[in-house]
Amino acid sequence: MLMKATQKKNDFSSFLDPKSIAIIGASNDSGKISGRPIEYLKRYGFEGNIYPVNPKYETIQGLKAYKSIEDLPNHIDLVIIAISANYVIDNLKICVKKNVKSCMIFSSGFAEMGEEGRVLQEEISIIAKESGMFIVGPNCQGIANLKNKSITTFSTAFVEGKLVNGSSAILSQSGAVAAMVYNMQKDDGTGIKYWASTGNESDMNIPRMATYILEDEDISVVQIYMESIKNGSEIIELGKKSKELDKPVLVLKPGKSEEAKKAASSHTGALAAEDIVVDKVLDHYGLVRVDDVNELSSYSKVFRLSKRVKGKNVAILSNSGGLGVMMVDKCKELGLTIVEFTENTKTRLFEILPIFASYENPIDVTAQLLNDKELLSNALPILMEDSNVDIILFGLGIIGKGYQIDTIMKDIIDSQNNGEKLVSVAWVGSQKGRVEEFNRNNVPAFEDPTMCVKAIAAYANYCVKNDRNIHNYYENTFFTTSNNKQFLDTLKINKGFLSEYDSKKLLNEWISIGNMNLCSNETEVNHIANTLNYPVVLKINSAKVQHKTEVGGVKLNIQNKQQLLEAYNEMKNKNILPEAEFQVLIEEMVETGFEISLGLKKDPVFGPIIMVASGGIYIEVLKDFKLLVPPVSNEEAEKAINELIMSPLLKGIRGKAPKDIKQLSEAIVKFSEFVLENEGILEEVDLNPIIVLDAGKGVKVVDALIKLSKSGEENDN
Amino acid sequence: MLMKATQKKNDFSSFLDPKSIAIIGASNDSGKISGRPIEYLKRYGFEGNIYPVNPKYETIQGLKAYKSIEDLPNHIDLVIIAISANYVIDNLKICVKKNVKSCMIFSSGFAEMGEEGRVLQEEISIIAKESGMFIVGPNCQGIANLKNKSITTFSTAFVEGKLVNGSSAILSQSGAVAAMVYNMQKDDGTGIKYWASTGNESDMNIPRMATYILEDEDISVVQIYMESIKNGSEIIELGKKSKELDKPVLVLKPGKSEEAKKAASSHTGALAAEDIVVDKVLDHYGLVRVDDVNELSSYSKVFRLSKRVKGKNVAILSNSGGLGVMMVDKCKELGLTIVEFTENTKTRLFEILPIFASYENPIDVTAQLLNDKELLSNALPILMEDSNVDIILFGLGIIGKGYQIDTIMKDIIDSQNNGEKLVSVAWVGSQKGRVEEFNRNNVPAFEDPTMCVKAIAAYANYCVKNDRNIHNYYENTFFTTSNNKQFLDTLKINKGFLSEYDSKKLLNEWISIGNMNLCSNETEVNHIANTLNYPVVLKINSAKVQHKTEVGGVKLNIQNKQQLLEAYNEMKNKNILPEAEFQVLIEEMVETGFEISLGLKKDPVFGPIIMVASGGIYIEVLKDFKLLVPPVSNEEAEKAINELIMSPLLKGIRGKAPKDIKQLSEAIVKFSEFVLENEGILEEVDLNPIIVLDAGKGVKVVDALIKLSKSGEENDN
Repeated sequence: MLMKATQKKNDFSSFLDPKSIAIIGASNDSGKISGRPIEYLKRYGFEGNIYPVNPKYETIQGLKAYKSIEDLPNHIDLVIIAISANYVIDNLKICVKKNVKSCMIFSSGFAEMGEEGRVLQEEISIIAKESGMFIVGPNCQGIANLKNKSITTFSTAFVEGKLVNGSSAILSQSGAVAAMVYNMQKDDGTGIKYWASTGNESDMNIPRMATYILEDEDISVVQIYMESIKNGSEIIELGKKSKELDKPVLVLKPGKSEEAKKAASSHTGALAAEDIVVDKVLDHYGLVRVDDVNELSSYSKVFRLSKRVKGKNVAILSNSGGLGVMMVDKCKELGLTIVEFTENTKTRLFEILPIFASYENPIDVTAQLLNDKELLSNALPILMEDSNVDIILFGLGIIGKGYQIDTIMKDIIDSQNNGEKLVSVAWVGSQKGRVEEFNRNNVPAFEDPTMCVKAIAAYANYCVKNDRNIHNYYENTFFTTSNNKQFLDTLKINKGFLSEYDSKKLLNEWISIGNMNLCSNETEVNHIANTLNYPVVLKINSAKVQHKTEVGGVKLNIQNKQQLLEAYNEMKNKNILPEAEFQVLIEEMVETGFEISLGLKKDPVFGPIIMVASGGIYIEVLKDFKLLVPPVSNEEAEKAINELIMSPLLKGIRGKAPKDIKQLSEAIVKFSEFVLENEGILEEVDLNPIIVLDAGKGVKVVDALIKLSKSGEENDN
Repeated sequence: MLMKATQKKNDFSSFLDPKSIAIIGASNDSGKISGRPIEYLKRYGFEGNIYPVNPKYETIQGLKAYKSIEDLPNHIDLVIIAISANYVIDNLKICVKKNVKSCMIFSSGFAEMGEEGRVLQEEISIIAKESGMFIVGPNCQGIANLKNKSITTFSTAFVEGKLVNGSSAILSQSGAVAAMVYNMQKDDGTGIKYWASTGNESDMNIPRMATYILEDEDISVVQIYMESIKNGSEIIELGKKSKELDKPVLVLKPGKSEEAKKAASSHTGALAAEDIVVDKVLDHYGLVRVDDVNELSSYSKVFRLSKRVKGKNVAILSNSGGLGVMMVDKCKELGLTIVEFTENTKTRLFEILPIFASYENPIDVTAQLLNDKELLSNALPILMEDSNVDIILFGLGIIGKGYQIDTIMKDIIDSQNNGEKLVSVAWVGSQKGRVEEFNRNNVPAFEDPTMCVKAIAAYANYCVKNDRNIHNYYENTFFTTSNNKQFLDTLKINKGFLSEYDSKKLLNEWISIGNMNLCSNETEVNHIANTLNYPVVLKINSAKVQHKTEVGGVKLNIQNKQQLLEAYNEMKNKNILPEAEFQVLIEEMVETGFEISLGLKKDPVFGPIIMVASGGIYIEVLKDFKLLVPPVSNEEAEKAINELIMSPLLKGIRGKAPKDIKQLSEAIVKFSEFVLENEGILEEVDLNPIIVLDAGKGVKVVDALIKLSKSGEENDN
């Protein structure tokens, strides 16, 4: 399901750092979409060549104008196309002939417009694929490189002010969102190097660009706004690159609600992946998902730092007890620890703080800071030396006239730049420009204390988690030809579904299924009946019957041979199937235990995803499930089990014996291997229920339902 | 438990709007705590009398100084005390003698400092109570009336800039938090009229001040930051006043985590109430709880409006599809409805919007707004006329040069001020001052779209819920002397606990308990045994045994007389109790159903709170409970039941019969009446389990445990 990355040469400098730029449809009016990039390039001092193309004019915005691209030199880095959708394809073809390296299409009227536009856009994709020319857009607002002043966009983000270059990149399908983020970071003093709006992504898309940009030495974090994900493997590549270089990637992906999914799809013309899968996959590959534009922008203040934290132990220092208390609440809510100071720290704090201050965590130096101006600065080195502390958060209330702001700021900045601990500031109602000053000096500073704690918590999660090993199933060694390929070859596949017996037999190589007895007539039942450990269960076995209970195809708790034969005949007489096809499966009754279900979900974008759920009523009432990306490690399986809402029942509650979590984890691991090894032929798998017995007694797969995919049928026939 | 409000005359104008102000310990240094209020009063143009008191000077900051308060006229409105804690009491006493109406104590060193300070503060409380003089503080930063320029605080919030008067009040124990909120609202253009930091609240506290301030015609919303709640009934009074006048009250109350509770307690020296109870009580009485300072400040943009909304149906209009999609996600997350437009609206939108825009909700006018400058303005009247829509949210991305900002703003402002629907704006990266301009013109405007949707959702909740009738148990008519007072008088109370039999008998008047048979010896059992409908259950009955099962004091499912007698003798022979005290209760076995538990929780601040919980493992694993404030209406009871996580099991799932929710609701209502009528004597009540049978079959209280309070014992003995 996951496609291989395309074979194109991965050098995106022609549009990320172009030296020569042509604009087809160039306008003299610098307020128009087709005029603005020229104005930006000139005003911000782009040093390469600019070629306005428009047959109507001799000069455009003071530059020599060209009648056609054909009049231009070959091998131009970037051609911007800002003309009506109808003329786009023809111009692209000319660009290909002229060996243009990349094109950027501002024009609207493609996939976001329905079927006709979709067809047109498909043509663009084909041109890109066949020619090797990179195409950005259509329906995009373009790209800006703030360091090298190639501002090839019509976004209003660059209408006013200076370019604020920084160590991050904002890549967004939506130009408006990219503009918002840049504007916030301009005010914050953090800035960006790359600004990109990719629109409909007929060829070039955000994951590929992000993977490329991560390699840039200037870049320490990439910020992404994606409305659609078309190619799962590119996201995985991005996650791997992020991990390899230890450069974080922040991802804003809306569409959690059905309504938003629909709107996003109408906005970009792309199909949306299942949100819970997106969530799991991003998390699994170490990409940091954020919830809104404010987070996307604000988190970069911390994530762009090179300093990592070792743990989640926080010290809070404030001049407002109230602010301190609120930050404590937020820290606890978001999984940070309000650390207990060492005795040494307490003693030292006690010496310097006013008697009515709190020298426990959170430290409140009180309004006394007005009279004793060095309180904050004196407390800081003490905390920097406390071995219990990983992170120091300042909660600053109003500090205006009457406070030694410059000294306080200098001390905080020095500590951040020279010390090992992460220092961050929430400064509510700060003086103008002060938060910006902190950020410019590598101290993540926020006006909103909630956002401060959120960003720090997300960052601590990233740092702590980044040790974890990311599996990638493309690299797995256990991909061998399955032994039971032979068995598969012998299967009679009936509209994709396997019978319970065949399902279990297929699975048996990975998860042991106990004794199954398949009987096709009464004689066989009669014969088997003497060999069984009663009680047993009798089930109809057919690829045609998926819901056995509903048709009376299951008889539980059969105590002896006589009952078994009676049950067999009763079931047979129901005529659920023609006599020739009537088969039954006889298995020992499984003792009671905790019910789990284990399933394979095939996501259209990300491929196989494993779902572990509490069985019975819990999955229905509580939506009590966890997703896992195969291959699943034992650790991941156990973590998922422990995160199930009903997991206390597995661990043993009210004096009941704990269940066999160890073997359940192993079963999940094995199931994930089964899923990967047979990925090509599996469409759906549902093991439900699996009974988890008391610790040491293992797990029993009571029912199994496998549906083979079309390609599976093809393989098989 | 809930105390009556004090009998003091409720005229707080002496400190909220003083005409004469003295400052004890006045300083010439306007940067000092004791100097700053004088500087503020002078600079901002306070028109009343200012009396600096300090024996060391002839004049202070250009004003005539006084040696002592005794040199001042009688009946001064407000005396500010800004001297060392040790001298506070003496000065208060002089103030009383001089008939000062109110005092405000800036000094620290009271309850926030431990036992010694607590004793000192208690003295202040007594002086206030005995004299009738109002006292604000100690450990407070004072009060400001921005309309009448009485800025009697040392907060740095007023160091710079102009006073921005508005229609809200910020009342905060913490001066720093009040300062933050004011600073934000100054920037927002909404402003405030009253600013108060109440510190340790030895006498005057926030609920009382808020209740008073709500009556002020200038005020449309009150914003509160409270670290501790000492008096539940005052909160209830505030809720009633808020409802009566339909003026919302926003409450920020930290201390959700244990760590924050501890820090808050050390900060203000007050004990904290249970957070889940605070949450429930605030909600019950219509007070709007917010989560952080940003919400406390930002929500006021909407809550200060007089326009109410009728429903939660939202239309979203943006010039950025991405922003629109994200706002949809937030709306859904927060319970707002993305409405489907009427056909008429769709037709009209289709006519005016560009062909690649979305004319479904959310409407995306796209970057085409640059070329067709009236798109937003043209779409707005169409939405204002759609009868499906209650709220119109604008999601504005960057709109800078090239857009007709003034026209767009004017149209939005006109719609808000002349139309019936609520109009609000999220404007990411707006031009400086534009958001402020919107707010000044009564259009709630936000830079952060998430905050916009949060505020609107909270407001819609407030408006929709405000129809609901708030009960107040002080006004209830059913408070009659209980018939079973006589029964109570006959109870042998044993260390507070009643036996199961006595518990059930006490309860029986409210919730019918069915047939109970109490036997003190075998003869009685033998006799009763002939009259029973088997199966029955046999239980030990004693005020001394609360956990019957653990000691072998319960035998279930007894099928006949013989088994009953055997069980009786077996239990007796366990010698759980001395023979003379050995009593048993025999009841019919209850058929299986859904288990609920119903309890009384006595909160130290808010008194009796009722807890409804899923029984069995669910309360333990899922924390599946809801709190209710008695008296409980049938509607409230049903709502609580329906909000239980396991409620699908009560409603009937997978073809199972629904349970008797109607009679369960009635039992909860009756239980709440039982609790209130016997409030004085009840300490703890636990009905667990109550079996909820199939619809129409009612509920059965299987076990009941009541503990009477000390006062109950006193009443009784």
